[in-house]
Amino acid sequence: MKLWGGRFEKQTAKDVEVFSSSLEIDSRMWAQDLKASIAHARMLGRQKIITAAESEKIVSGLLEIGEEMSGELLLGQIIFASESEDLHSEIEIRLFKKIGDPAKKLHTARSRNDQVATDTRMYLLDQISLLNQDLLDLKATLFRQAQNHIETILPGMTHLQHAQPISLAHHLLAYFWMFDRDQERLSESVKRISSLPLGSAALAGTGFPIDRTQVQIELGFAKVSENSLDAVSDRDFVIEFLSHGSLIMTHLSRLSEELILWSTPEFGFIELGDEVTTGSSIMPQKKNPDVAELIRGRVGRVYGALMGSLTMMKGLPLSYNRDMQEDKVHLFSGIETVRPCLQLMTLMLEKCQWNSDRMKESLKKDFSNATDLADDLVEKGLSFREAHEIVGRLVQTCLEMRKGLEDLTLKELRSAHILFNEVSLAKIPHHQVMRARSSQGGTSPEAVMVQLKLAEHNIEKSKKSAGTTLAEN
Amino acid sequence: MKLWGGRFEKQTAKDVEVFSSSLEIDSRMWAQDLKASIAHARMLGRQKIITAAESEKIVSGLLEIGEEMSGELLLGQIIFASESEDLHSEIEIRLFKKIGDPAKKLHTARSRNDQVATDTRMYLLDQISLLNQDLLDLKATLFRQAQNHIETILPGMTHLQHAQPISLAHHLLAYFWMFDRDQERLSESVKRISSLPLGSAALAGTGFPIDRTQVQIELGFAKVSENSLDAVSDRDFVIEFLSHGSLIMTHLSRLSEELILWSTPEFGFIELGDEVTTGSSIMPQKKNPDVAELIRGRVGRVYGALMGSLTMMKGLPLSYNRDMQEDKVHLFSGIETVRPCLQLMTLMLEKCQWNSDRMKESLKKDFSNATDLADDLVEKGLSFREAHEIVGRLVQTCLEMRKGLEDLTLKELRSAHILFNEVSLAKIPHHQVMRARSSQGGTSPEAVMVQLKLAEHNIEKSKKSAGTTLAEN
Amino acid sequence: MKLWGGRFEKQTAKDVEVFSSSLEIDSRMWAQDLKASIAHARMLGRQKIITAAESEKIVSGLLEIGEEMSGELLLGQIIFASESEDLHSEIEIRLFKKIGDPAKKLHTARSRNDQVATDTRMYLLDQISLLNQDLLDLKATLFRQAQNHIETILPGMTHLQHAQPISLAHHLLAYFWMFDRDQERLSESVKRISSLPLGSAALAGTGFPIDRTQVQIELGFAKVSENSLDAVSDRDFVIEFLSHGSLIMTHLSRLSEELILWSTPEFGFIELGDEVTTGSSIMPQKKNPDVAELIRGRVGRVYGALMGSLTMMKGLPLSYNRDMQEDKVHLFSGIETVRPCLQLMTLMLEKCQWNSDRMKESLKKDFSNATDLADDLVEKGLSFREAHEIVGRLVQTCLEMRKGLEDLTLKELRSAHILFNEVSLAKIPHHQVMRARSSQGGTSPEAVMVQLKLAEHNIEKSKKSAGTTLAEN
Amino acid sequence: MKLWGGRFEKQTAKDVEVFSSSLEIDSRMWAQDLKASIAHARMLGRQKIITAAESEKIVSGLLEIGEEMSGELLLGQIIFASESEDLHSEIEIRLFKKIGDPAKKLHTARSRNDQVATDTRMYLLDQISLLNQDLLDLKATLFRQAQNHIETILPGMTHLQHAQPISLAHHLLAYFWMFDRDQERLSESVKRISSLPLGSAALAGTGFPIDRTQVQIELGFAKVSENSLDAVSDRDFVIEFLSHGSLIMTHLSRLSEELILWSTPEFGFIELGDEVTTGSSIMPQKKNPDVAELIRGRVGRVYGALMGSLTMMKGLPLSYNRDMQEDKVHLFSGIETVRPCLQLMTLMLEKCQWNSDRMKESLKKDFSNATDLADDLVEKGLSFREAHEIVGRLVQTCLEMRKGLEDLTLKELRSAHILFNEVSLAKIPHHQVMRARSSQGGTSPEAVMVQLKLAEHNIEKSKKSAGTTLAEN
Repeated sequence: MKLWGGRFEKQTAKDVEVFSSSLEIDSRMWAQDLKASIAHARMLGRQKIITAAESEKIVSGLLEIGEEMSGELLLGQIIFASESEDLHSEIEIRLFKKIGDPAKKLHTARSRNDQVATDTRMYLLDQISLLNQDLLDLKATLFRQAQNHIETILPGMTHLQHAQPISLAHHLLAYFWMFDRDQERLSESVKRISSLPLGSAALAGTGFPIDRTQVQIELGFAKVSENSLDAVSDRDFVIEFLSHGSLIMTHLSRLSEELILWSTPEFGFIELGDEVTTGSSIMPQKKNPDVAELIRGRVGRVYGALMGSLTMMKGLPLSYNRDMQEDKVHLFSGIETVRPCLQLMTLMLEKCQWNSDRMKESLKKDFSNATDLADDLVEKGLSFREAHEIVGRLVQTCLEMRKGLEDLTLKELRSAHILFNEVSLAKIPHHQVMRARSSQGGTSPEAVMVQLKLAEHNIEKSKKSAGTTLAEN
Repeated sequence: MKLWGGRFEKQTAKDVEVFSSSLEIDSRMWAQDLKASIAHARMLGRQKIITAAESEKIVSGLLEIGEEMSGELLLGQIIFASESEDLHSEIEIRLFKKIGDPAKKLHTARSRNDQVATDTRMYLLDQISLLNQDLLDLKATLFRQAQNHIETILPGMTHLQHAQPISLAHHLLAYFWMFDRDQERLSESVKRISSLPLGSAALAGTGFPIDRTQVQIELGFAKVSENSLDAVSDRDFVIEFLSHGSLIMTHLSRLSEELILWSTPEFGFIELGDEVTTGSSIMPQKKNPDVAELIRGRVGRVYGALMGSLTMMKGLPLSYNRDMQEDKVHLFSGIETVRPCLQLMTLMLEKCQWNSDRMKESLKKDFSNATDLADDLVEKGLSFREAHEIVGRLVQTCLEMRKGLEDLTLKELRSAHILFNEVSLAKIPHHQVMRARSSQGGTSPEAVMVQLKLAEHNIEKSKKSAGTTLAEN
Repeated sequence: MKLWGGRFEKQTAKDVEVFSSSLEIDSRMWAQDLKASIAHARMLGRQKIITAAESEKIVSGLLEIGEEMSGELLLGQIIFASESEDLHSEIEIRLFKKIGDPAKKLHTARSRNDQVATDTRMYLLDQISLLNQDLLDLKATLFRQAQNHIETILPGMTHLQHAQPISLAHHLLAYFWMFDRDQERLSESVKRISSLPLGSAALAGTGFPIDRTQVQIELGFAKVSENSLDAVSDRDFVIEFLSHGSLIMTHLSRLSEELILWSTPEFGFIELGDEVTTGSSIMPQKKNPDVAELIRGRVGRVYGALMGSLTMMKGLPLSYNRDMQEDKVHLFSGIETVRPCLQLMTLMLEKCQWNSDRMKESLKKDFSNATDLADDLVEKGLSFREAHEIVGRLVQTCLEMRKGLEDLTLKELRSAHILFNEVSLAKIPHHQVMRARSSQGGTSPEAVMVQLKLAEHNIEKSKKSAGTTLAEN
Repeated sequence: MKLWGGRFEKQTAKDVEVFSSSLEIDSRMWAQDLKASIAHARMLGRQKIITAAESEKIVSGLLEIGEEMSGELLLGQIIFASESEDLHSEIEIRLFKKIGDPAKKLHTARSRNDQVATDTRMYLLDQISLLNQDLLDLKATLFRQAQNHIETILPGMTHLQHAQPISLAHHLLAYFWMFDRDQERLSESVKRISSLPLGSAALAGTGFPIDRTQVQIELGFAKVSENSLDAVSDRDFVIEFLSHGSLIMTHLSRLSEELILWSTPEFGFIELGDEVTTGSSIMPQKKNPDVAELIRGRVGRVYGALMGSLTMMKGLPLSYNRDMQEDKVHLFSGIETVRPCLQLMTLMLEKCQWNSDRMKESLKKDFSNATDLADDLVEKGLSFREAHEIVGRLVQTCLEMRKGLEDLTLKELRSAHILFNEVSLAKIPHHQVMRARSSQGGTSPEAVMVQLKLAEHNIEKSKKSAGTTLAEN
């Protein structure tokens, strides 16, 4: 009982049906499909394209199907008729069983091309709302941890070498702003996703006197699409989402890398919770940062989905081509990877213990206070280049003596340069070095407190807009 | 004369210098680097970190260097001293030769980490302004061509099979909206690029009493970065640009594919200009759509650059790592691929001739008017499913008779279904089919004219905002 | 009942278990896991690491489990205990239920690291045997079709422009050699996959007096791995397979593109079977080349899996990291995309009808015979450059007269150049042009017949080696 | 003076020439192009397609051009005539200047399609010989370092957690085998690259009585291509090379990651040489592992080139399309990234100092000897599961007491399980743990010595086959 059998003499080969089936993938969108069909049926009735009675029958049939499917899901999964070639034919079959002939009129003035595009956009909008919440949760956790660690000092790294001492709060907030940009990018993409394709029919629009704006408003879309050819063959929003998802994963992979590194006995900056680590079946002592590793490893899924969807679209002529059915494989793989990774990162941060003693310990003799000695000479009139050279040689001497700069006496210091004095000495302690970096966005406790205010404000704003978005869609 | 020799005993190996040199790549950003250094030097003077006299000397020295480099470029290329390890040391060497000791003070309160990040952002902002203009030019060309082809009819395709007749204007406008989304995405990214890292120093901020807001305003950035660690190690903006660039290339590849297809003798819908095609060294008759092919092939460069930059960032701990030097290889490859492709596509469209006769001819006996016969039965009370079945069988019959639907007599029509009548006959001609699709965003001439109005308005708005952006940066 | 609970105080969070579970993925490898465990248990017994009785119990227990799982699969799917965290713990749980304490000894002298690596390699070797057969089937189909179309003439294309007339057999055989290279690459990779990691234990080998060679021989591996650290963390073979799979998909995408193109009414070179095409729910006339489109679209899955697995491995320190669990997601996605695509391509070619009339028709006035006129002048002493110029102008003249070269009279021909004569005229007909290209690997019927011999020989060889491989593994 | 002007009325636009120029890229292949042209000209003479005198003139002209170009290169770069659109027209222009009319005959019976494909294959074969040597050098360096560190003990890691103590030699040899697989893959690809396309002409072969086998033998190719359509449009070998290059880079990125990690003060396992590290312009103490970071970062270039070339080929119909010109951009980017990265890695390893004291130190209290205690219980009759549980709890107790297992008294040990005894105690020391793992491919000194023998044998074999390959090509 194909929806399109008329001009065919032979049956589709069984292998082809299996090969081209989208049922397993598409079934995620059952709720969106029903919602969109209801809006469509109401509009058809209002526009007198079908009768008011037909419209009502269809709507109530669809509502019933929604309840049925909900129920089936609760028990495990939606049960599809064997003859259903996709989600849409399944719904049509059920509707026909319920209300008979009027069911066939639901397909008036639309095609699967605009219908699937509509469903996918609705589904993604819903998922972005949830993802937004995941990002907000992670940001809030980073913020809370940062609040507790303004004065916690650790070596700031460049090239994974000790560079200058920094505040742990400052380090955590670096990630806060990364995830904030992720949120910003997702929100901006919403307006492009929220363009309604329904009413574009197969590719060229329709002759039925439909009213697309009615449907747009009922479904909460921001606008109707401008061009029917574009509407049925545009997959930009899928690729754009996967680009944003790839950046989220990039950020998560960087944080994961640090958690893994900091969990080594060599670093020992952090102890991950038993809840989020696992052991080894062979080595009884092991406590492995599996979750962080899995997050880092799953970056590959999202990069792969991005590359896959770009490849799919390369060189496709207008308008709809069946290749585009693949969009959902990549989109769902992206969504279903990114969201749990965000949630588990939040859990991992909540369950970890920061070893501030080890962090502090690791600063000893690390020369991450060298820049401040050079700056001291600059303030006393040397050029930075000269000061750098002098302190560089002093570091060399210390290395030979197995001393840190903080272990030098004033006399030793002055033998490196005569301008060094008590003031210079006072600048050497690591906490003083951290305190000194008070420029806007710097690591000193005051600067970090300003930054925390910004972050707090940002969270408040995000919370509000998250609320709004959920209401709107 | 390394900027960092102090603690080293042995020279860097020659191979390492070649391997790690960024000169060839970075030199593109000379103008941005000078501009940022001037703003920095002025601020240092105003904040009394260096004296007013020193500040003035530095500024005028940098201005001179700017003129020198401009001059060298006009003659071919900037000439670098052999000891320069990157653009920044080249400028410092020149400055020292000009003004002596004060040159060494330019490096106060900044490092190469925040400096390079600043240069790159400034460079990209400038390029996006230009790219915006390229996109606008292409959109304007599509718009003008569309204006001339509202009534030009051709087969609209799905699955590369004739689906329904459409207007050539409608087809061209589909691309208009794709490139419009590209423009929209780029504009939105501007605010994230326009975040000033300067003042973050190496990673942790600085103790010098700098004023980052002064520099931000002078350089026209939208804000200063919130966190110094993030500021020196954030490459989101590079990846985000390459994502947007990949979508632009995707759109160009689709249009290129169609131009190539339409240039075949089998289609013959278009004749590309001699200016944008080439011949064969062996086959005298050849006229090849090389430009379209090269654009399609160059998609690979931008997808590759995107994947390359994502790979580079995967799993990097905070803050700056030398891996990040690679960002510019990918960024510049992206910019330098996308812009010429846009420009050449515009040229190609300007130089082509549309063969409307061939387009019309190709509609004969193509059954792209079948949907309307089915719709006709629907209006007469049949369900769409039944109507579809009946017309499907009629198509089958026509195929056997080697006739098109437009060749059927009323009698033949009525033998398929008794409800067919004169009204049905009137719906069959292809131009009538096109005319009928008058829903919002559809292909009928009136609907297309509404769409053209939207496009015109959009171009006006783009022009204005392009102007603004150029002024702002 | 974790396999590793000893040093942990708190339970793993439920979310973490879901997040890190590999059960759904790994369960594909149940048969390989059992087979490897049996070989391991036998060796442990023979080496007296466990008693002969224990060894026998384990082996017969595992054989029973194999029958159970086979049976469950026949009824739908293997039923896992809720406490199983992966395939291996499931099997251990079942084994314990069957044979009690000795079950616990199966894990002696191995870890999940070497065990999973072994299973994956065995699974892939099995799949490559099957894939090899898929490739052979496709090659055989191309060969058979080529045999029937040695004299079928069609326009050979460069730049998708008519270049020179070619034999359809020649065109089909081009794909034959592509898929042959694919087969060659896969066979060569076998020896690298066929390196046994079992016995590497967690990472460093084991102190138990195991005999790895016994296991290698029983399992049919080509060698044992040389280094235990490498053995547990090597995923080259996954990436190498996905590289080869990507090339297979590239080739399939090219062939699909041509089938789609040739199915357009404009080309009309081919009619795809009803069995492998589908219609439209809205347009009754449509017959869409869905299978070819889906194959082309699914290229993205395999490119994505390749990129995903490369990303996963980037920058991972030795030895095993949990990131590597992701290898199977990408590997299985690759296998399960490539194999059906090959099978469906074979089906599609078997069910298609070649329209040789349309092919021949399309050569008229296409100037793909121009090179031969130029060659004619070369034989008469002109340089190729001059000849090319003269024929180029002649083509231009014909275009104005709306004639083909084949429509010219001798007089018209001689007005282009005096050296043209009857001999020249005889070279113009398209079938003559095709016949003339008799160089090795060329398109003339004789050359193609030589090529068919090579292909036939190649198939014979492939069949034999396919047989061997199946027996070996 | 285009090679194909005849049928064109208008000039190619200047922008198009710039856009489509391949000169900068292709000029790398000048030597290969000349060599192939010489072989072609000789064959044309021998086959009497041109006269012996013409053939000789062409050959000696080309030889002269070779000397000229060599000379120009020595002085900086080859100087191209402004009218040259690619390398091949440049050579033709020079040849014409030297020998006049016969120059025009060089193009007989070939086209740019088969010519460029031939050049590229020859160039790649040459580069693979060199790359093979680079790999061999790196392997030899790893081997030599391993020879010196058989007894050097360090923590072997899984999940970047201490797992079991291993020999540094064993760790280094893990990389040896990775690079050995890389070499193996490259050698196997040679036979596919070494298939001569020349003689395929534009796409269909030629009517001139050429002898392709003569040319094949003179150029040292392994065979002639079987099918002309395939020969001019096959880019498998480019993609295959980039796949292999991506794996090389993956391996280099893993080793780089470890060198970076081991250079941190927290690990301190290695001290990189001054020659291969750089400092900071702002932080006088810094010594950064730049080379390792750059190698790790450049992985992105090769992954990107692979993705770019796959994208380029997706969905291209037969035969040659201009998109394929892009192959060389990706290929050369791959070659020119991989080779220096291999060379610099070799240099870095040669210039590093291994801190065996720090490695040994880091094993203290790390519990990487826990497995052996568990194994001890297994030997005494417990199941591995039970033993694992007991030792897991013992580790927990030690952690609370801040002791290592090696710090336990026999009494303390026996309180964990009564079966522990003196024998157990003797198994605890880390060097004993390492020594115990004597299974084939394990980390015990004897097993490593066996492995070193294999490696030595492998190097000998590689040296011989490298010699052969160089001679052959």
